[in-house]
Order: sequence, then structure tokens, then C-alpha cells
Amino acid sequence: MTSTVNAPAATSPARALVCRGCGAEFPLAAQHACFECFGPLEVAYDQAALARVTREQIEAGPQNIWRYAALLPAGQDPSTRVSLDPGLTPLVSAPGLAAELGLRAPLWVKDDSANPTHSFKDRVVSVALTAARGLGFTRFACASTGNLANSVAAHAARAGVPSIVFIPGDLEQGKVITTAVYGGDLVAIDGSYDDVNRLCSELVETDEFEDTAFVNVNVRPYYAEGSKTLGYEVAEQLGWRIPEQVVIPMASGELLTKVDKAFTELVEIGLVEAPANGWTVFGAQSLGCNPIAVALHGDTDTIVPVKPTGIAKSLNIGDPAAGLYALEAVRRTGGWMDYADDDEIREGIRLLARTTGVFAETAGGVTVAVLKKLVESGKLDPEKETVVFNTGEGLKTLDAVAGLVGPTYRIKPSLRGARDAGLLG
Amino acid sequence: MTSTVNAPAATSPARALVCRGCGAEFPLAAQHACFECFGPLEVAYDQAALARVTREQIEAGPQNIWRYAALLPAGQDPSTRVSLDPGLTPLVSAPGLAAELGLRAPLWVKDDSANPTHSFKDRVVSVALTAARGLGFTRFACASTGNLANSVAAHAARAGVPSIVFIPGDLEQGKVITTAVYGGDLVAIDGSYDDVNRLCSELVETDEFEDTAFVNVNVRPYYAEGSKTLGYEVAEQLGWRIPEQVVIPMASGELLTKVDKAFTELVEIGLVEAPANGWTVFGAQSLGCNPIAVALHGDTDTIVPVKPTGIAKSLNIGDPAAGLYALEAVRRTGGWMDYADDDEIREGIRLLARTTGVFAETAGGVTVAVLKKLVESGKLDPEKETVVFNTGEGLKTLDAVAGLVGPTYRIKPSLRGARDAGLLG
Repeated sequence: MTSTVNAPAATSPARALVCRGCGAEFPLAAQHACFECFGPLEVAYDQAALARVTREQIEAGPQNIWRYAALLPAGQDPSTRVSLDPGLTPLVSAPGLAAELGLRAPLWVKDDSANPTHSFKDRVVSVALTAARGLGFTRFACASTGNLANSVAAHAARAGVPSIVFIPGDLEQGKVITTAVYGGDLVAIDGSYDDVNRLCSELVETDEFEDTAFVNVNVRPYYAEGSKTLGYEVAEQLGWRIPEQVVIPMASGELLTKVDKAFTELVEIGLVEAPANGWTVFGAQSLGCNPIAVALHGDTDTIVPVKPTGIAKSLNIGDPAAGLYALEAVRRTGGWMDYADDDEIREGIRLLARTTGVFAETAGGVTVAVLKKLVESGKLDPEKETVVFNTGEGLKTLDAVAGLVGPTYRIKPSLRGARDAGLLG
Repeated sequence: MTSTVNAPAATSPARALVCRGCGAEFPLAAQHACFECFGPLEVAYDQAALARVTREQIEAGPQNIWRYAALLPAGQDPSTRVSLDPGLTPLVSAPGLAAELGLRAPLWVKDDSANPTHSFKDRVVSVALTAARGLGFTRFACASTGNLANSVAAHAARAGVPSIVFIPGDLEQGKVITTAVYGGDLVAIDGSYDDVNRLCSELVETDEFEDTAFVNVNVRPYYAEGSKTLGYEVAEQLGWRIPEQVVIPMASGELLTKVDKAFTELVEIGLVEAPANGWTVFGAQSLGCNPIAVALHGDTDTIVPVKPTGIAKSLNIGDPAAGLYALEAVRRTGGWMDYADDDEIREGIRLLARTTGVFAETAGGVTVAVLKKLVESGKLDPEKETVVFNTGEGLKTLDAVAGLVGPTYRIKPSLRGARDAGLLG
């Protein structure tokens, strides 16, 4: 780390795609599975390029994810970005929540509902579509549980590029409308998210879709890198420190692995020092879709796919692509995983709102509910600084709490009405 | 304007409350009407204090409204702020919308749906509650059409202060839940917003509410000043320039007057130069609640209150407190007002979403629909740079477009299903 402000990197620091299974390397292209072993691919970087990045360079950048462009696989040239410019979402101090849960060290909520389409997906979509346009794609697509659909459709509208979004037929109405309103094609599929994802994997091989970037299929390695920005931001917002504990919701498990990767990178390239005893990563799932947590609890690497149920639809990926890597990160850092049932999720949403003013979607309720369980079970250390991630917006899953909250009084419009209701003593 | 970075002002630049009617002055307290003539009060500033503010001082401030604290009546000391830290919302370039409407100069959307509770109300509430706490109040309240309720309840939750929010009984469910979830008291009133507002004006005089700050009643002068930050931000985000034309939705009419006031202040204190021919302010209402626009069209200062109808509930103030001042600003700057019916509002929402990726609530639909009318009628100059204000989030008024948008295809989860739907040529 130097104090010199360098010019932003004009070229991508990405070096290759590398197989997470066998380590084989491939050129940077639209490829997501290894030709050797069919393992998933990940972006690998020129470490020397990363190591040239300085805090000052980042701090002089824009107030969004692109301040970290020199650590991302695309978007170094601002004119190439396909983006709603997400990121730098609030890191909210949560002393009231900490007190209720019995945490005695600082607790923070990283509130990604503040992104343009109100979920962390804007981060991954901005990176994926920027990479996709650079690779020559002229139509944007995704398989989605809702938030991703919103984000891809909105990004495409902003960029003036056609989009086609595939969703399960049973999604919350809010997420359907919030995709359809942007005017792209929207395909509802009679099946689960895993069915939708499988169909997209087939469509991507057809001639009719060769111009189409499926953000979470054929450009998935770039897409996944966008999640690193959540880790970078937490560290920068803490004054270039890594928190001792993080609690992260898991769908595919990828978000968790990328936050961990971001922390690792920041230490390796010298932008931050690791906490004295390292950091610990915790993962949160719902009872209705808990295959990664169940594998951890069973002390196995065998993740048995499930048919998801329950209200936390944005986490309902029954066959989680990055589950194995999430297990690895949690085990390596001495963390744990747990899961919450629908009632606990609803209570988690209300607890977070009441103590912090942050209204989370069901995924945020999962994470807060699991945070509570982790404290109660002693798995999470109440004396260590903790960051809990809210990845989405409560307005998108109103049904979850619709029956539980409402007016506390209903009165006539008069002082007498107020008096009769007891509001005047 | 100097290039020296000054320390932030430690004290408020506010000097007094001054009557907008007769000009009488009063000390800075919890007072909203003139003791002489019952006219509305406004915050007046020490112009010398404002004139010491520099661009550099502002640019060195936080990434939210408090960067303008030296131009506001409260919050100079960060430790005193009651705030979700709203502001610095995106100023979105909208070339696609400009092209569809036939505008040949730059068009921008100031997107205040990006605030913490997703409306511009977070700005006014942060300023009002910060002032209120400084004045000794220990409970926060408001009369609201929804967005304000969300914001007050969320601010109170973050600050750990009790709240009591009064809403009309017929509000959209989204806005009800998004207030109730924060756990404060929520009083639904059988009546219109104007009924709710009148009751609050009565309650504020009772002993039982003497500890209670009604953000838009007894601390209204401070509250209203928060809207200035929208004007400051637009100017700063344009590189310290004032746009030639602005189109602003009107409920009470206060937002419009405060954006105009912000521009005026910036010029007076030397932070920006006015455009060569000044700026022009346009106001937008709905057909269901158009008393200010009707007065303008009738060339009168007599604003006849209406009983509001229509889907743009967040603008449904039938007896607009600042209507007269909105008329003054629009006439003085050579602007105009118009109004849109419900179908035009819905189309405005879709047009904005399709061309910019911004999903607005009905109020944003009103403003875009009126922008379209103003272009078509020749009232707005297509050769001049224009900023249109979106003040709220589409997720809060999903019902408005629920019947109009949805999946464009519904298929079985197979290539055959895709082929049958025509997705494979």
C-alpha cells in the first residue's frame, strides 16, 4: 500500500477463467463450466495488477461499485458500463438490535435494499452485463427468483438493450410487476427455480439464443465477481478494517464465498490487515431450503438437493451451485450455518425494522433470525464485532408480514375519536 | 466563493421564523403559524453565514443531505442528527425518454426513490426530527398520505424514539405495512388526508401531545427546509449548474417552492451562476387533485380546495398549504402547471420505467405524464435542459400498474415449451 494516487487501471485485472474443481485455466470468454471436469469456473486475476490498487485510488472513485473497478473483471472504462450504478449502500450501526440479541460488541447491518432495484443483485448484474456487452452479446437474460429479474430488466431498460427474463410461475406479485414494468420480455415457467435454471442452461446452447447473455449461466463467472463489492464496501466503510464476524444469507451460496474472497484479496494485496484472529463467516438459510446448512450439520460435503418451500423465495435454490465452496469458507474460518422457519423469518423482519429502521425482505428476516439463533447457541461470539447482511427490500415481500402488522388504532377524525381510543390519556 | 476549505459551521445559520404573509419575525421555536396574521412561517437565515459556505466545504461532507448542513436549520453537529441519512440520490440521464418525448436537450430524472424509505420525505423528516429533538420533543408524529408515515416511523425506530403516525384509512396496503412494521403507534382515521391533518392540528394543542413533534404541523417550518436539498443536489450533480427547466410534482406545493428557493439561495450566495435566461419551474398534479393548477389556468390566486380522488394518493392534498407560493414561483419563472388523469399516470410510470430503468410510484407517473403534456402543448421548451423529479418508489403503488403489466409468455419448463411459445424462432 502506497500513498500515491494511481490512475485507474485502464484494462481489466482479470487474467483467466479457472476451474474451481480441477484448476484448469481458460481464456476470458462466455464460459461457465470446465471443459475438462465440468466444474464451475471462477475469474482469476493478475495478482500484480491487484496489488497496485491503493486505498486512495478507490476513495477517489465514484460513489458506487465502480470505485472497485480495478478489482473487478469488467468496467474499467466507464463508457463500457451497463449499470444502474449500485453500491456504497449504508452500513447501519445497530446498537438497539445488538442489545436485544445480547451482543456486546458493535453490530452493523449492511443494507443492500438501498440499491437501485433494492437488492444486492444490482451489483452482480452490473458486472455481468458490462462483461457481456464487452463479449459482444446484444440481448440480456436471466433465470431468477425475482430480485435478479427486476435488476436485469431495469438494467436493460436503462441501457436500451432488449431483455428476456425467466421466472418461476409462483413468484410474489411485487417481483413480477417490478420486472414486467420495464417492458422487456418476461417468461413465466410452470416449475421451480431449479426448473427455470435448467431450461435456461438448455436455451443458452440454441442458435436462437447465441446473441443472449444469461447473467447467471453463460457469463456467470463475471456475475459472481460482482458480489465481492459487498465485502470491499464493508471493509472500507469500517475504515479499512475487516469485521470479526459476518452473517450472510445463502441461496446458491455464492454471495458468502465472494464476501470471503473479497476479504482475502484485500489482505493479500495489502489494503487491510486481517483481524488478529481472522474473520469468521456464518451462513443463513431457511428451513424450507437448507441443503447447505444440513450438510454442515451432518459434517459432510454431500449436499442433497431439496425441493424448496417457505416464504424466503429469494433464497429458494434447492441445488446450490456454490454450496461446497460456502461449506469450505465457513469451516475454514471457524464459522457455522443455521436455518430459520417461516415464523422466525417474519419475526426477524419485524425485529430488524423495529430496532434499526431497515425493512428487509424475507431473506433479511432469515439472516436476522439466524443471527439470533447463532447468539443463543453460542456459535457466534457476542464479544466480537459483527456485520449482518440484508440483501433485499421489505416492499417486495409484503405478504410475509401483511397479516402481522397494521394500524394499532382506528378512529373517527375528531378529538372525541382520539379520546375514545385512549390517545388522550 | 473561495477555494479555501472552511470548517463546517458549528451553529445553525437559521436566524428566525418569518411569516410568509405579513413578514413578522419570531424566534426559532416549535411554531408554524404567525401570531399576527395566522400566515405560514418559514425559516429565515443569516445571509452572511450562508455566504461563507463554499463548494469545497460541501464536497468534503458526507454522501447525504448533511453535506448541506451549513444551509439547513438543524443538524450542524452530526451527533444531534435524527436521520436515516437520505439524499445524494441519482440524477439519471434519460436520453431514451427525451427521444420519445421529442426533447432535444439533455433530460435528467432526479430519482428520490433511492432514499432509505424510498421517497423524498426522508429529507424533510431528517431535518424536522433533528430540529424537533433539539427543541426538546420526545415523541415523533405526523399526518401522512403514506410516504411520510413510512419515513417518520423508520426514523423513530432508528433513533429509538416513540412515534405515533396518523394516516387516512384508505391508504395503499404497502404504505400501511411499511409504516406498521417499524413498531410505533399507527392510527388509521376514517377520513381524507385533510381530515387527518386537521385532527393533528387539534391534537398538537392538547396537553397529552405537548411532548410530541408533528413533523408537518408544529415543526413544519424546519420540515419544509429539508426539500431544499433536492435543489442543492441537482445543482451540484450537474457540476454546480442550475438546469433551465424543472418539472416537480405538487401535493402541498411546498416541494416546488423549496427547490426554487434552493436555486435562488445558491445564486445569492455565489455558489452557482444562474442560467443566462434564468430557470423555469413547472408543476404537476393529477386530475383527481388539481387545485393549484386550476388556479393557474384560471389566472387567479384563489385556490379552491377539492376532495381528492384518483390513484396518485401521495399527492392528494385537497387544500394545499403552499399552493399560493407555488403559483408565485411558477409565474415568476415563466413556467406552467398541468395535470394528468389516472390512465395518463399509469402510462407515465411505464414510459419512465421502459426508458430509464426507474420504477416510480404514481406521483412519478404524474410528473412524467405532465412533462409529456408540457412538451406537446409547447409550454416546455424542448431545446432546454430539463430535470424531472421522481419523488417515490413504484413498489409502494403496485396496484396502479398491476392490471397492465405481467408475464409476456407462460410456458412449460422445457425446450418444447419454449418452442411452442415462439421463443425459438
